[in-house]
Amino acid sequence: MIIHLKEGIAENKVAEIADAVEALCFFDGITHVLVNSSKVKAVPSHFEEFVDQQFIFDSDIQLASRDYLKETRPIQIGKNQVGSKSINTLMITGPCSVESQEQIEACAAFNQSLGISVLRAGCFKPRTSPYTFQGMGEEGLALLAEMRAKYGLQIISEIRDASHADEVINAVDIVQVGAKAMYDQGILRKCGESGKPVLLKRGFGATLQEFVQAAEFILSLGNGQVILCERGIRTFETKTRFTIDLCGVAYLKERVNLPVFLDPSHAMGYAYGVPDLTRACVAMGIDGLLIESHPDPSSALSDASQQLDFESFGKLFETLPGIANTIGRNMI
Amino acid sequence: MIIHLKEGIAENKVAEIADAVEALCFFDGITHVLVNSSKVKAVPSHFEEFVDQQFIFDSDIQLASRDYLKETRPIQIGKNQVGSKSINTLMITGPCSVESQEQIEACAAFNQSLGISVLRAGCFKPRTSPYTFQGMGEEGLALLAEMRAKYGLQIISEIRDASHADEVINAVDIVQVGAKAMYDQGILRKCGESGKPVLLKRGFGATLQEFVQAAEFILSLGNGQVILCERGIRTFETKTRFTIDLCGVAYLKERVNLPVFLDPSHAMGYAYGVPDLTRACVAMGIDGLLIESHPDPSSALSDASQQLDFESFGKLFETLPGIANTIGRNMI
Amino acid sequence: MIIHLKEGIAENKVAEIADAVEALCFFDGITHVLVNSSKVKAVPSHFEEFVDQQFIFDSDIQLASRDYLKETRPIQIGKNQVGSKSINTLMITGPCSVESQEQIEACAAFNQSLGISVLRAGCFKPRTSPYTFQGMGEEGLALLAEMRAKYGLQIISEIRDASHADEVINAVDIVQVGAKAMYDQGILRKCGESGKPVLLKRGFGATLQEFVQAAEFILSLGNGQVILCERGIRTFETKTRFTIDLCGVAYLKERVNLPVFLDPSHAMGYAYGVPDLTRACVAMGIDGLLIESHPDPSSALSDASQQLDFESFGKLFETLPGIANTIGRNMI
Amino acid sequence: MIIHLKEGIAENKVAEIADAVEALCFFDGITHVLVNSSKVKAVPSHFEEFVDQQFIFDSDIQLASRDYLKETRPIQIGKNQVGSKSINTLMITGPCSVESQEQIEACAAFNQSLGISVLRAGCFKPRTSPYTFQGMGEEGLALLAEMRAKYGLQIISEIRDASHADEVINAVDIVQVGAKAMYDQGILRKCGESGKPVLLKRGFGATLQEFVQAAEFILSLGNGQVILCERGIRTFETKTRFTIDLCGVAYLKERVNLPVFLDPSHAMGYAYGVPDLTRACVAMGIDGLLIESHPDPSSALSDASQQLDFESFGKLFETLPGIANTIGRNMI
Repeated sequence: MIIHLKEGIAENKVAEIADAVEALCFFDGITHVLVNSSKVKAVPSHFEEFVDQQFIFDSDIQLASRDYLKETRPIQIGKNQVGSKSINTLMITGPCSVESQEQIEACAAFNQSLGISVLRAGCFKPRTSPYTFQGMGEEGLALLAEMRAKYGLQIISEIRDASHADEVINAVDIVQVGAKAMYDQGILRKCGESGKPVLLKRGFGATLQEFVQAAEFILSLGNGQVILCERGIRTFETKTRFTIDLCGVAYLKERVNLPVFLDPSHAMGYAYGVPDLTRACVAMGIDGLLIESHPDPSSALSDASQQLDFESFGKLFETLPGIANTIGRNMI
Repeated sequence: MIIHLKEGIAENKVAEIADAVEALCFFDGITHVLVNSSKVKAVPSHFEEFVDQQFIFDSDIQLASRDYLKETRPIQIGKNQVGSKSINTLMITGPCSVESQEQIEACAAFNQSLGISVLRAGCFKPRTSPYTFQGMGEEGLALLAEMRAKYGLQIISEIRDASHADEVINAVDIVQVGAKAMYDQGILRKCGESGKPVLLKRGFGATLQEFVQAAEFILSLGNGQVILCERGIRTFETKTRFTIDLCGVAYLKERVNLPVFLDPSHAMGYAYGVPDLTRACVAMGIDGLLIESHPDPSSALSDASQQLDFESFGKLFETLPGIANTIGRNMI
Repeated sequence: MIIHLKEGIAENKVAEIADAVEALCFFDGITHVLVNSSKVKAVPSHFEEFVDQQFIFDSDIQLASRDYLKETRPIQIGKNQVGSKSINTLMITGPCSVESQEQIEACAAFNQSLGISVLRAGCFKPRTSPYTFQGMGEEGLALLAEMRAKYGLQIISEIRDASHADEVINAVDIVQVGAKAMYDQGILRKCGESGKPVLLKRGFGATLQEFVQAAEFILSLGNGQVILCERGIRTFETKTRFTIDLCGVAYLKERVNLPVFLDPSHAMGYAYGVPDLTRACVAMGIDGLLIESHPDPSSALSDASQQLDFESFGKLFETLPGIANTIGRNMI
Repeated sequence: MIIHLKEGIAENKVAEIADAVEALCFFDGITHVLVNSSKVKAVPSHFEEFVDQQFIFDSDIQLASRDYLKETRPIQIGKNQVGSKSINTLMITGPCSVESQEQIEACAAFNQSLGISVLRAGCFKPRTSPYTFQGMGEEGLALLAEMRAKYGLQIISEIRDASHADEVINAVDIVQVGAKAMYDQGILRKCGESGKPVLLKRGFGATLQEFVQAAEFILSLGNGQVILCERGIRTFETKTRFTIDLCGVAYLKERVNLPVFLDPSHAMGYAYGVPDLTRACVAMGIDGLLIESHPDPSSALSDASQQLDFESFGKLFETLPGIANTIGRNMI
């Protein structure tokens, strides 16, 4: 359950209550919030006097539930907001990986030319083979910092594992937790303490319940800036790399108070399908998109088959505001 | 491989060649078409003189492949065309099942009021339990015939199994093969011989390869009027009934020469998600849609949770032409 | 619910009650059994006087539930019994398809030489492509009848679809319903009326709930001789053809009163894995096995990669009694 | 490809070659081994003089392939060996989590009483909810060290994420990498450098290809002591927690040179199915087993439903040597 304590209770009393009810506890700027297992359905009577509000749930989706907060949580990304009353659908694009100064600069300039404010690119790549390109690491992060300074872009990049979480968190504006790391509590806890927006990708073998519960690890440490990103789940179908789960997105929009982004590039795995899928994603009424683009996909060191070249991306991007407007949203 | 014979070859010679190369054979109105295994890569030299054109493939997706026919096959449904150079996206709606004269008449009148030309409703229901409503059977087909006559609608209804294939084929304008019957050769062969448009739903456990190969059973009997309908596949996710596979739709549009329809109602399983998903489907640039609607979903004898009431359907339907137009298509 | 009526109630009264409670009804040799939806939890009070026993369930697994019959149902196959108090594990082997007199006779003689009493072989093959071998049809059934007569074997063969159900049912000793036909009510109803033992394979996309409910279609028509056969489900893994679901078998043994057979050949798809998997199946304490064997697998017209040659099968078969004995069972 | 260099080449020359061919490099005690992408099919001609042997592969399963080493790699666990020419099947049991001194001591004493030499128990639990028991952490590791000292047991425990990898590696005899951490390169690299036996569990959404490639991360750092553990994959079936993939085990035994263990407890999720499944696993001819046992499962703080009580475990354990012996193996 979630418990809102009354104002003005002393810190040590707050800690005592949290301890007694086995709850995690954080201060959200206004209120001391206590959260314990959803199996707990009532506050012990001797603590009732300290309680302002309480919320009962039927599963451990609690802080993320629309039964707790009806409205989508607001998240500020640079000068733009997503979630809350905003009608923005935010485009994020860039290459799979930072590969060189020249390559990432081409991408940054391309984003700027289209008015796209966030640049994505991986530096620590969670490859499935040790014998392929593993990313430029901290050197890549430094290049991204340069792009931020020179082109005025926001930067999103991925933490691969907990051993370099701090380096990535310090370097980026939005912290990305990748699909393979979704369950990683070392990362989730660092994100919870970071105070930065976190884009949490769904593990391709993770249920929606587990996905949102991974967000609860971050939320329960007091960081409410979590974006959920569906990027395709693993099914029996192998003609495409993964299967984008838009039914799941419909569920998340209905039940969960976090903004939802979509990454059709990783789901499809092939550039030819990305434009149609991107338009479908926009028509779902979502908060944002991650699309992979690259100056020369055929030479890319990772995900070569699914990245759009700049011409294809440009053509696609032109078609999105029309769809967004039709459903009362604004493509940014 | 597919072999087009030259014009004017005697029927018995055609049969001799087909037999010799172990091929299925049909006359498509212009040409004698022979199709045998894709493992066959050449015509025996002593038959070469009879061959006009030949097409080699790397799998048994042959007649349905865009490597055979580049353009989507045209299908005439009443006075409307889908596929080919048409930009139509055709809406089909109606209840899961025919339940009574009153119910189906309410649905037919509703369709007419919105200018929707095709009415869907099942009479032989492939339920997973023998202890639930199994459909009105031939009585239901008779009610659908009444609706056609009175409201000027085209009728689509499903064959559950081969034991009543003729009855359904005779009664409908579009023959539906349901997801659970997708592999049923008794049905597929009847459809191949029927000369009527066939809407073939993807089995929820079927790969895209198997799905299109099921269409090949129909195509190879000379009936080219096959529509593929994606309706959700079974995955590990259980918050929604199935997972609609739009990545798979992107594949079908790229590689297969058959029109593609989508059924988000069965995929989602819950009415709340159907409007967003329907809009996403339209934005994919597809040829048609099946959406379940019912005058009073809460009283429905099957699929109660996923059918839209008339008000919700009407609101949804209003939003679709705008999206269709944005991508150069026309909602009908 | 399931209702056992008292003895001696007139047929027309039985029919009246069944009709009033919307139940299927059959006479099991001793009792009139009525079964309706599991949502029904009580008999109307004015019928209570006719009721001997009633059984309440939480899902439409009713006649097949161990909450109805605690002991596994007995099934007589030739002179052998499986299920009930029998400790028999019955081996069934033979080729994927009947291909010729010579081939099937080699198989029949091989079975006889090992003391294996049941011969399996398909005549109507549910292939996924129309351009491959579709089976010998009725000619194949005639060859199987010859083998029965000459070698004293029981015969099991598959119904592909409802259009030839009667032919197969008449020709065999055990009716096989294949994985792709598991939901086929045309077939299931014919099986229910047949009075013959039915081996029902699990659809590779079917849940255990659906699998057992398919058996309920047969049971609710009064045929209690249903064997469940797990043969692999479709998962994301593609190194093997399917994934044999032994966890599911553990569930079936615990909750369902029908004998359970296993078919590791179709699950694995490659002969190299069949011996280890077969031994694992026997160690599960199951009632029977289907293993594909062929005099020359490399020349087989279907399933070439997964059939064992006679030498391999013979070596495997020798190892099974030891394992069966260890767990108190008897390999036959 | 894998390259074995000739003996006696200077370290700086080895490094130069490795660098030039973009290979990982380690010394296996006898030979300098270089491994780079399987797409590389030949050594540059000017390095040929340094090459003793080279091995070409069609995927990045290289060091783990039976095409490299035909025999299963040997792994020493305390005084017992698994793999290589050993016929041992090693039982590991213990509770899901260390919960208290009393609980873990009961488990340790139980293992000792049955002659089971390895104790499993988690200290850092990768729970899917932040609101449940997260494990005793380093306090738990200290208790396990006590059990090793007092009862002469080997200890296996799990690394949850890279933030505490060193602590766990230092404390245990076998390092466990759990299913949710299978892709975690932070952990895999620490394991590669650790010099200790590593039990790597298959991610429940991971293909066999990915699973073995995760092992390659460890092997390519020079640690050849990797055990693969199949523990159930996620499928559409929900009556059981996961689906144990014995077809996959057959594949691993055929193609991969690492010992294979099985964990039927996590696959099944329910104690009732564990005995049958354990016997099936033993009959597969595997190298070892992980079974969860607990002095009082109903009070367990994690995985309460799947742990066996001591009586059930004892009864099960008695039945295993018989099966093992039947197939020429020895249960230890």
